[in-house]
Amino acid sequence: GGDCATGVAFTRDPAIGVKRFYGEYLIDAQGEDVVAGIRTPKPLSELKKEMPKAYRELERVFPILENHYRDMQDMEFTIQKGKLWMLQTRVGKRTGFAAVRIAVEMAEEGLISEEEAILRVEPNGLNQILRPIFDHGEKGKATVLAKGLNAGPGAASGRIVFDAEDAADWAKKGEKVLLVRMETTPEDIKGMFASEGILTARGGMTSHAALVARQMGKTCIVGCGALEIDQEKGELTVDGRTLREGDPLSIDGSTGEVLLGEIKTIPSEVLQILVEKTMNPEESEIYALYTKLLSWADRVRRLGVRANADQPDQCRVALAFGAEGVGLCRTEHMFFGGDRIDAVRKMILAEDEAGRRKALTKLLPMQRQDFIGIFEAMDGLPVTIRTLDPPLHEFLPHEEQEIENLAKEMGVEFEQLKGKVESLKEVNPMLGFRGCRLGILYPEITEMQAQAIFEAAADCIQRGIKVLPEVMIPLVGFKGELKQQEEIVRGIAEKVIREKGVAIKYTVGTMIEIPRAALTADEIASVAEFFSFGTNDLTQTTMGLSRDDAGKFLGSYLDQGILKNDPFQTVDREGVGQLMRMAVEKGRSARKNLKVGICGEHGGDPDSVEFFHEIGLDYVSCSPYRLPIARLAAARAVLKEKH
Amino acid sequence: GGDCATGVAFTRDPAIGVKRFYGEYLIDAQGEDVVAGIRTPKPLSELKKEMPKAYRELERVFPILENHYRDMQDMEFTIQKGKLWMLQTRVGKRTGFAAVRIAVEMAEEGLISEEEAILRVEPNGLNQILRPIFDHGEKGKATVLAKGLNAGPGAASGRIVFDAEDAADWAKKGEKVLLVRMETTPEDIKGMFASEGILTARGGMTSHAALVARQMGKTCIVGCGALEIDQEKGELTVDGRTLREGDPLSIDGSTGEVLLGEIKTIPSEVLQILVEKTMNPEESEIYALYTKLLSWADRVRRLGVRANADQPDQCRVALAFGAEGVGLCRTEHMFFGGDRIDAVRKMILAEDEAGRRKALTKLLPMQRQDFIGIFEAMDGLPVTIRTLDPPLHEFLPHEEQEIENLAKEMGVEFEQLKGKVESLKEVNPMLGFRGCRLGILYPEITEMQAQAIFEAAADCIQRGIKVLPEVMIPLVGFKGELKQQEEIVRGIAEKVIREKGVAIKYTVGTMIEIPRAALTADEIASVAEFFSFGTNDLTQTTMGLSRDDAGKFLGSYLDQGILKNDPFQTVDREGVGQLMRMAVEKGRSARKNLKVGICGEHGGDPDSVEFFHEIGLDYVSCSPYRLPIARLAAARAVLKEKH
Repeated sequence: GGDCATGVAFTRDPAIGVKRFYGEYLIDAQGEDVVAGIRTPKPLSELKKEMPKAYRELERVFPILENHYRDMQDMEFTIQKGKLWMLQTRVGKRTGFAAVRIAVEMAEEGLISEEEAILRVEPNGLNQILRPIFDHGEKGKATVLAKGLNAGPGAASGRIVFDAEDAADWAKKGEKVLLVRMETTPEDIKGMFASEGILTARGGMTSHAALVARQMGKTCIVGCGALEIDQEKGELTVDGRTLREGDPLSIDGSTGEVLLGEIKTIPSEVLQILVEKTMNPEESEIYALYTKLLSWADRVRRLGVRANADQPDQCRVALAFGAEGVGLCRTEHMFFGGDRIDAVRKMILAEDEAGRRKALTKLLPMQRQDFIGIFEAMDGLPVTIRTLDPPLHEFLPHEEQEIENLAKEMGVEFEQLKGKVESLKEVNPMLGFRGCRLGILYPEITEMQAQAIFEAAADCIQRGIKVLPEVMIPLVGFKGELKQQEEIVRGIAEKVIREKGVAIKYTVGTMIEIPRAALTADEIASVAEFFSFGTNDLTQTTMGLSRDDAGKFLGSYLDQGILKNDPFQTVDREGVGQLMRMAVEKGRSARKNLKVGICGEHGGDPDSVEFFHEIGLDYVSCSPYRLPIARLAAARAVLKEKH
Repeated sequence: GGDCATGVAFTRDPAIGVKRFYGEYLIDAQGEDVVAGIRTPKPLSELKKEMPKAYRELERVFPILENHYRDMQDMEFTIQKGKLWMLQTRVGKRTGFAAVRIAVEMAEEGLISEEEAILRVEPNGLNQILRPIFDHGEKGKATVLAKGLNAGPGAASGRIVFDAEDAADWAKKGEKVLLVRMETTPEDIKGMFASEGILTARGGMTSHAALVARQMGKTCIVGCGALEIDQEKGELTVDGRTLREGDPLSIDGSTGEVLLGEIKTIPSEVLQILVEKTMNPEESEIYALYTKLLSWADRVRRLGVRANADQPDQCRVALAFGAEGVGLCRTEHMFFGGDRIDAVRKMILAEDEAGRRKALTKLLPMQRQDFIGIFEAMDGLPVTIRTLDPPLHEFLPHEEQEIENLAKEMGVEFEQLKGKVESLKEVNPMLGFRGCRLGILYPEITEMQAQAIFEAAADCIQRGIKVLPEVMIPLVGFKGELKQQEEIVRGIAEKVIREKGVAIKYTVGTMIEIPRAALTADEIASVAEFFSFGTNDLTQTTMGLSRDDAGKFLGSYLDQGILKNDPFQTVDREGVGQLMRMAVEKGRSARKNLKVGICGEHGGDPDSVEFFHEIGLDYVSCSPYRLPIARLAAARAVLKEKH
């Protein structure tokens, strides 16, 4: 009846984490009516007016429960003829955004410890803080059509789609879509996942849409009652305007605003401060929370964090995100820029060593300059430089017409160039003529690269810049391979040191990316001063699974439960992980102070990072933007071990 | 002076093993003159006339030395003014041919034990006994040009080449060549290796040519003084005829005859008896020796031997060579024969499961008939049948024109067929959509194959033929893969058993051919009743080395000593072998009576067979013609362990 109500409440805002009671209720209803999303419930603030006594009672109960459970509570209550009954309380689900704020603030309130705060934030949740936001100026100029509940923070623009299946289809074709529905149901999951954001006309913060968006980390607005959706016609009417399927729309999940058209996004506040340097740290609350949490994490973690970075600008981003070094600098990316590719191609087409050396001479000063830039940026932090890795055919065109053009450009015969392209074709390039195999057959390539590295180092040192190069040989499977390459590198290093008269501290190590290297890690560690796991290739070889071709069946494997995770995303502990553990043990048995890291993409995956901590790696290296996640995951690994 | 001589002698013939003193000497010469091949020495029989006293002395010394050392001796002696001085004695090198005869005869003489006899024969030496010989009738019609010393038994025909480098070049182009030289020197090695046979004008049984031919197992005649070689002109004059470079010539290394033209060869006596059944066992001395040695080996060895055989006729050859079962029956080879390929292609092109099932229905009776033939041939011995393994694109044409022809033939659109061919293309087919991955996505293929196997089994059993099928799932990396396929196979098996009302004993197991399978062998063995190592693929994945592409650098790796052996020939004990050992241990820890075999090409490599014995495999499976070698190697492994 009218003196009865039922509702759901949170002790803090589950979408953005602000410390305020937050809830919804319906008069004369059952509990499921609130979460079903059919009727949009009223915000708790109105209960204060409608049933002041019950409201005061709630206000008294909320902190008791939160303090008792020491976490944000998600509660159900009912009011029977004015009397409050608490039906249920549990730890509330929250967005990544809210998780950070709640964790940091609770620690500062003294409710939980800093360590607990670290454990309260799922590392991938940090992505929400780093995601683009709407450009303030552009947004100011945009028309606000309506306002709903800010269920999932973030900025999302896309073309309106009214059906979840269509959303998935459109997304497959590369369209950015915004899913607009009266409410969502479990069968919409796939479409929700495929959308940039979700907007519903009905439902509250505890509706299906809000719940799922929180879990997926999707931008989401719910309960936007101003929307009139005619799904049959494929029309949305709001604020006197009619929009159709395919029209652009934007939603600000942090404020609940629905905006006309597509709005330009800019980097998140954290990025504006750290990378773009267009914002002052003190202007951003988010940044303060982020910094605090990560500073606690940095104090706890034992794993080092490095970045995969090939250029000085990437190095600067990496440093902004806390990189303690470069774990993987791919020299081949430098082979493509500007007119370098010409020299590279001449080298490949050369008939003999003399021809290759001539072309390499042209590359030397460019590579040297690249390394100078990177050393300057990293300013004394270690930089792991990998010698040439990809198969040579990657540097040549493959289409008839392109070959013809290039032949003209280079002044060589079409047939000669085409013959070379053909001769470099491989049945299984992944398992072919690449990695150290190139440097072993063409030692002059390794020589040039070593010379560029050490001359760059000498140049920096002479200018007072500290340098710590670590030369890394890829795709080693046999000790003899590494030995041959190591001798070349050391030979050049000693020569440069002698000629330039400067002392250069450096190490030579190897990637562990094929099973045989892991199996014979003790032998290999007798030469290598460090290991860096290339978990991408190690996964491919250990599983006999080409990343480029697995698409045909990997989905079905995941559906059938044959695989629990995509092994290219989260490291396969039982198989690949077993080899890694073996390599660490064998490697350190042969060389006690062997430094061991990982530079595959798994370095930025929280679950994998925990495993890497567990097997005693020294550091993980990942893309600069994954560094905050890696730092947090590394700290959590320490704490989970304790608990 | 004239009453002085120097010579070399063997206690038995090092080329064919016959028990007779064998030697060469020169009057008035130094020891090195005999082996240098410049002067052709005289046979020992003449010494009997020239220096009867010294000869008698030699006759007395030979058996003393052989009995003392219990092996054929290679001795150097000198005669100074009529007095004999023995300068050196050592165990003599011998051809594979001679090794077998000497070992068997010494054992029969009681000089050595049967076990020692087994250890005296390098298994690869058996190849010489199995090699083709000249057709007796054809040879009778041929012109004998000259006779030399039979230094390397066997029959060889080829085009005359006078230069070792040319021999290597011609051979590379696919020419069969016969290297004809005055004498050979160490720099001729490559050319000797590339030739079918070697013929020299000078030198004796201890000359460079004879020595190397013995070690290489090459057909060889030396000291054929009737040849007049003009290397400048590229001419060979003999018996009044002049032959030029490129002309065909034949040599019988067992008799020392040089014959005009190319002479047809026929299978060796052992093959004539065992496989062709065109000769009676009692007619062949060689066969008697072969049988005796292998019967001794069979008594000693613990490793079982099976053959890789896909068809009934191959099964029969395998049985003749002592196969105790089929270790690998590749079902895909059956997919190519006759008009089956049409059904296979229709299956691949089918748009859905119904279409695939329709095409598979056509294949079922053919596959069933294949298996009936194999079961009949093997008559109760175990037959390991592997389900479909190769990537589907192997069944489709790739050239535009072929695709067009096939499209017309099949009555489908060119674009549709081409589209399918394109969609099946893979970046790394070795690591792609193949093996059990096919059967997991298209369970109906596995179903059809299982049905063919069990219906064939039921048919044979009903006719009183014993059958022991072992169904083998390829390319398993995860327990879940095997489980899914195993359930399909068992489901069909039980259905056929029920329907036909016959009991069929069968097992389901898997190949271990990717590292992850070896690493998680305990999990996999909880489902698999047997393992069979696919060492070809296991080598490729463990080393990250594509067999098809490694040619570019493998040679250089061997030259530089980075690799000791071709890993596709002799198993890499440290890497691949370590995984195998691990898989055996883990597998048996989970299933005590797990049967473990190997069906890669390493199954016929003696060194690898020894390793497989060492790590406790139950059997090796290799090509039928390698079976004698595997049997001998398996026995030697037992004996080496003892000693």
